[in-house]
Amino acid sequence: MSGILYGVGVGPGDPELLTLKAVKIINNCAVIAVPKNGGALGDGVALQIAKSAVSLDGKKIIELTLPMTRDKAELQRHHDDAAECVAAELRAGYDVAFLTLGDPTIYSTYTYIHKRIIKMGLNAQFVAGVPSFCAVAARLNIPLTEGAQALHILPASYKGTGAGLDMCGTRVLMKTGKAFAEVKKQLAGRGMLKNAKMVQKCGMEGERVFENLENADEDASYFSVIILKDGEEKL
Amino acid sequence: MSGILYGVGVGPGDPELLTLKAVKIINNCAVIAVPKNGGALGDGVALQIAKSAVSLDGKKIIELTLPMTRDKAELQRHHDDAAECVAAELRAGYDVAFLTLGDPTIYSTYTYIHKRIIKMGLNAQFVAGVPSFCAVAARLNIPLTEGAQALHILPASYKGTGAGLDMCGTRVLMKTGKAFAEVKKQLAGRGMLKNAKMVQKCGMEGERVFENLENADEDASYFSVIILKDGEEKL
Repeated sequence: MSGILYGVGVGPGDPELLTLKAVKIINNCAVIAVPKNGGALGDGVALQIAKSAVSLDGKKIIELTLPMTRDKAELQRHHDDAAECVAAELRAGYDVAFLTLGDPTIYSTYTYIHKRIIKMGLNAQFVAGVPSFCAVAARLNIPLTEGAQALHILPASYKGTGAGLDMCGTRVLMKTGKAFAEVKKQLAGRGMLKNAKMVQKCGMEGERVFENLENADEDASYFSVIILKDGEEKL
Repeated sequence: MSGILYGVGVGPGDPELLTLKAVKIINNCAVIAVPKNGGALGDGVALQIAKSAVSLDGKKIIELTLPMTRDKAELQRHHDDAAECVAAELRAGYDVAFLTLGDPTIYSTYTYIHKRIIKMGLNAQFVAGVPSFCAVAARLNIPLTEGAQALHILPASYKGTGAGLDMCGTRVLMKTGKAFAEVKKQLAGRGMLKNAKMVQKCGMEGERVFENLENADEDASYFSVIILKDGEEKL
């Protein structure tokens, strides 16, 4: 019998935001897989979060090389290699927990491995987690959506980010990272810096909270989430 | 010393999707507050989910009457009364956990109470939870977003739902409930029924999974989430 691959969302940073299910699955898996991007920010973070909540003693930990590159052929080769590495464990009968930040269905590298494992005829499942934007809203002590407002989650790498900023409802900018200067320029051009709130490294060491972006410096890390609201409903 | 109000997200249905933090906060609160809407679907669901994961023995459970009505004055009166009821417990020194489905910052009645408690000069905090759409994507075994796709969360009551359906990226329709027939018509008019997936009562008793909406009957409950994707990325 082949094992099952679980894409386990460990939440955005605070180990207490792991779900009971994530803890159980991690406990039950003999093999833990974690992405390794070669020194970039975020390497090993999902593993550290999990370790703070669950003992990984006695488990086999495999690091999958998944660099962040725009070279499609190189990306595919790394995804294929990582999937083969996971598949070998599954075929040997071991269940594997792939740890991923936030929720595994939202902008996760896990997706690339998941699809390949399914295509190989093996079993892969998502284990839902708390997305970063929910924790960021909680940290800012504001609701994301009220009444009939829409909620738009926009990756800063998304080509329509500018247009996205003009949508009605609440807009969440994720993955700003290197694009922060450009995002700030787009916000400034629309007079939105005052209304934009941001949390960096929410729930992690070095967390920073910005009630607006007027004086935000530009060393935003990969773990920044910006929230723009249409204004508050009256009580 | 006044107590603290916590808006605790208990996740979408599966009690295992509670976070460690939610369990801890519920354990530590002497008073548990739950919304009661007077017989409508969903009454008592958050309480049942929490009870399946944590013992509530010995705690005071208060039911807050929060009916679903479009009469603004009536709504405000109920929100005011509920906030007063919670404030009385806080002023008596008790911490209160208000249980809410999914994540408390996304379309939660809790928000109305939270804002009033803050306005009274008392302490209120959000405790992030797993939103229903993450669990629904996991149940369907599909990623919500890949690469640079945007993610649009649209309440079916949102006046721009039609326009929302035409956005690029992944569209999630929440709170379809009574509007399901209308939503289905909007989807049919765009040739989107085949591409729309839905889960009703995800993780709860009576869960139903629809790989498309071509033959979906119209007794969709309040707990339905529809996901529309732009198509899959190639491996």
